[in-house]
Amino acid sequence: MSLKWISVLLLLQLSCYFSSGSCGKVLVWPTEYSHWINIKTILDELVQRGHEVTVLTSSASILVNPNESSAIKYEIFPASILKDDFKDLIRKMLDMWICNSPRDTFWTHFSQMQEILWKFSDCIQKFCEGAVLNRKLMTKLQESRFDVILADAIGPCGELLAELLKIPLVYSLRFSPGYAFEKQSGGLSFPPSYVPIILSELSDQMTFMERVKNMIYVLYFDFWFQTFNEKSWDQFYSEVLGRPTTLSELRGKAQIWLIRTYWDFEYPRPLLPNFEFVGGLHCKPANPLPKVLWRFAGKKPDKLGPNTRLYEWIPQNDLLGHPKTKAFITHGGTNGIYEAIHHGIPMVGIPLFADQPDNLAHMKAKGVAVSLDFHTLSSTDLLNALRMVINNSSYKENAMRLSRIHHDQPIKPLDRAVFWIEFVMRHKGAKHLRPASHDLTWFQYHSLDVIGFLLACVAAAVFVTTQCCLFCYRKFAKTGKKEKKE
Amino acid sequence: MSLKWISVLLLLQLSCYFSSGSCGKVLVWPTEYSHWINIKTILDELVQRGHEVTVLTSSASILVNPNESSAIKYEIFPASILKDDFKDLIRKMLDMWICNSPRDTFWTHFSQMQEILWKFSDCIQKFCEGAVLNRKLMTKLQESRFDVILADAIGPCGELLAELLKIPLVYSLRFSPGYAFEKQSGGLSFPPSYVPIILSELSDQMTFMERVKNMIYVLYFDFWFQTFNEKSWDQFYSEVLGRPTTLSELRGKAQIWLIRTYWDFEYPRPLLPNFEFVGGLHCKPANPLPKVLWRFAGKKPDKLGPNTRLYEWIPQNDLLGHPKTKAFITHGGTNGIYEAIHHGIPMVGIPLFADQPDNLAHMKAKGVAVSLDFHTLSSTDLLNALRMVINNSSYKENAMRLSRIHHDQPIKPLDRAVFWIEFVMRHKGAKHLRPASHDLTWFQYHSLDVIGFLLACVAAAVFVTTQCCLFCYRKFAKTGKKEKKE
Repeated sequence: MSLKWISVLLLLQLSCYFSSGSCGKVLVWPTEYSHWINIKTILDELVQRGHEVTVLTSSASILVNPNESSAIKYEIFPASILKDDFKDLIRKMLDMWICNSPRDTFWTHFSQMQEILWKFSDCIQKFCEGAVLNRKLMTKLQESRFDVILADAIGPCGELLAELLKIPLVYSLRFSPGYAFEKQSGGLSFPPSYVPIILSELSDQMTFMERVKNMIYVLYFDFWFQTFNEKSWDQFYSEVLGRPTTLSELRGKAQIWLIRTYWDFEYPRPLLPNFEFVGGLHCKPANPLPKVLWRFAGKKPDKLGPNTRLYEWIPQNDLLGHPKTKAFITHGGTNGIYEAIHHGIPMVGIPLFADQPDNLAHMKAKGVAVSLDFHTLSSTDLLNALRMVINNSSYKENAMRLSRIHHDQPIKPLDRAVFWIEFVMRHKGAKHLRPASHDLTWFQYHSLDVIGFLLACVAAAVFVTTQCCLFCYRKFAKTGKKEKKE
Repeated sequence: MSLKWISVLLLLQLSCYFSSGSCGKVLVWPTEYSHWINIKTILDELVQRGHEVTVLTSSASILVNPNESSAIKYEIFPASILKDDFKDLIRKMLDMWICNSPRDTFWTHFSQMQEILWKFSDCIQKFCEGAVLNRKLMTKLQESRFDVILADAIGPCGELLAELLKIPLVYSLRFSPGYAFEKQSGGLSFPPSYVPIILSELSDQMTFMERVKNMIYVLYFDFWFQTFNEKSWDQFYSEVLGRPTTLSELRGKAQIWLIRTYWDFEYPRPLLPNFEFVGGLHCKPANPLPKVLWRFAGKKPDKLGPNTRLYEWIPQNDLLGHPKTKAFITHGGTNGIYEAIHHGIPMVGIPLFADQPDNLAHMKAKGVAVSLDFHTLSSTDLLNALRMVINNSSYKENAMRLSRIHHDQPIKPLDRAVFWIEFVMRHKGAKHLRPASHDLTWFQYHSLDVIGFLLACVAAAVFVTTQCCLFCYRKFAKTGKKEKKE
């Protein structure tokens, strides 16, 4: 009896998604840095469950590393950009973004961001060309008969590969500027009255003027801001597929969107059945630490106190999970914030770029963090902020509340993410979760044709009634006059 | 090691939601008939997990039965209506609804339905009065210190009890006519372009004229149809609480909405994080059957063939799960349809009232059922329909497809339902899932104030600019004239 139980448990752990016991083949189109760190957790779990995972990456890739010891396979194709040039470009982009003065206006800030994203887009397009125009590679991929492609939606190409290889697509996504992808391709709606637009640093409790601000942001992002040079992508995709198409259209074919946040971090807002919020899937319990630590790779400052130690690398998660950890000084990346939520640690944020200021605005609104300005920050500010989150018990209490919410889910985010990838492999998609809005044009979606038709009907009815009344009136008036004359 | 595993498993099975191991107290405000059958599955599971479940029910209750052998407690209060009178009223209501001729117009049909629902509403209000105005009962309930109240949203009073007893509220709901509760109190949106309104018998693949029809239905339900005599409820609730309130407002305080459908049955549409779709939670594997069966309580017809047997009661689920079952003739109630989906059985539907025609329209659109008209049905129609779903293999294939989708969920619907009830008990609510839209008025929610303000700004800017231009023009024109004159 007991042996049977253990076997069942082992079987559950090891068996794959097909009833026959054979496993699936997953192709991955990743994005660099923190995006890779996050998606790799999913890949490791897929491998653990016996699936074959192949990461498609260019010779210029930075963090996507085929040399590490892992059962993940890497398919490396030559890129027209050198690794050092790519690194250099990313560094320049980040410098530009980070050095963006806080006194910059909204317009300057976002137009600069648009410029940065377009440069990034050009780079990714070159990588994409390197992959899909490489006949040998494409033949090899075709022959490999993958069951699903997992792609980070922020770096295009995954949707084109899915189309070319005729396999279902699953996205991983933190966010797109102005929620453009989630709206246009995913079909989500974001009512501007209570859903603060991403990057706005607003909360869901908005004053009237904040709602005005949010509406202006929404209009700006909807009608002005373009995350990528979409025209160039549309043209490229149409050429490759030999029929007119758009990046947005192909993106809309994704079966499942795995969003890298959850309602501990997000403000509740409308979603669709094919969106899963799997924030914090990379979090795990902490391993014990020997002592207090400080990661710093530069020259040791002269004034450093004896209770501060410098290390070139530290296990952030283990440090956050250490019982003596009182606060987390962070740049506010989503991965780091989730590790702090996981372990219930209050934060002092010094956001640098991208979603970091907005992430910390979320944590501030939830009473878990103090956010400082990188450009004007003094040592006193940092000290005060640290004292605040350590001594004011509400920060710790709120952090523990978020932590409890985060841990109290019917199934863990990583298991949910893997479940839906396996579901797509088992069923060759997740069509039952796909809203029919994808088959409508924008004016049909907003019922503009129906409203127009109904208004026309009402107008016609009013017109006919008025004409009838007028006709009757004239007739009777005439008869009246005639009668009078007689 | 093996013993440890078994202990862990047993502990998981038996331990309750508090870390201390003590269990929760659940108060239940149920609705009769199929609603009770469905919610009772949840109650049995809660009891199984060690919680204390108390069902609050009137002396006139029909199916809510304290005599059965179960660990569920029943708190019965005297009602101003007799059981037989209540039964009689329900019978008359159903007769009226069922005998509603298919040739009736849309308006007649729905105004008759409104009349029926108002009568039902009056009845429920009397029960509600019987409970909340009963001081002794209310004191007893106060002293019992319940952790959560589980109520069927279709029969009001649960939200008032939650307010009086100051405990969080969880709803179970199949639907409200026109999705009124889900919209007004839950904050869900139902875009009329691709979400067919409940009872419309439309699918999510609508032609232009069907979308026009859907829009008219939506407008009708939004502005004309009232599920209950809301004014009477608003007044009653305000009197009891001693402050102005509405049924809709109190309903909006529900922490979690457990909707009794899922995406195997529904068309994908927007939802909110505090809505869980737990359709089919009552389904279970079939027990073996001895022979073919037929449930019939009336006089045995003379012409009955020797291969048809009559029984007064049969275990429907076991019958549907029998390997030789080829088709299911059903009135189209949601519970029965889910049992057919669970076992992958095609259906011949003869819908009678309420959501039954719409349920079968769903099953027809998904290729799983043939629907017949109860009013015009001949024996040949029934035979042809049966032949169709048995001999045309697509019906069985589609039924099996729905069944696979139904079974392939990260966690079972019943476990999900119970998880969220326990979550609400553990955290005294589920505030992190509650959208901020609840704090907005309807015009704020639709951003009408913001749009008005922005339009006023634009108008003011245009006006000022025009005035400036005019002023300049006049000035220069005058100067020009003067110069000419000189």
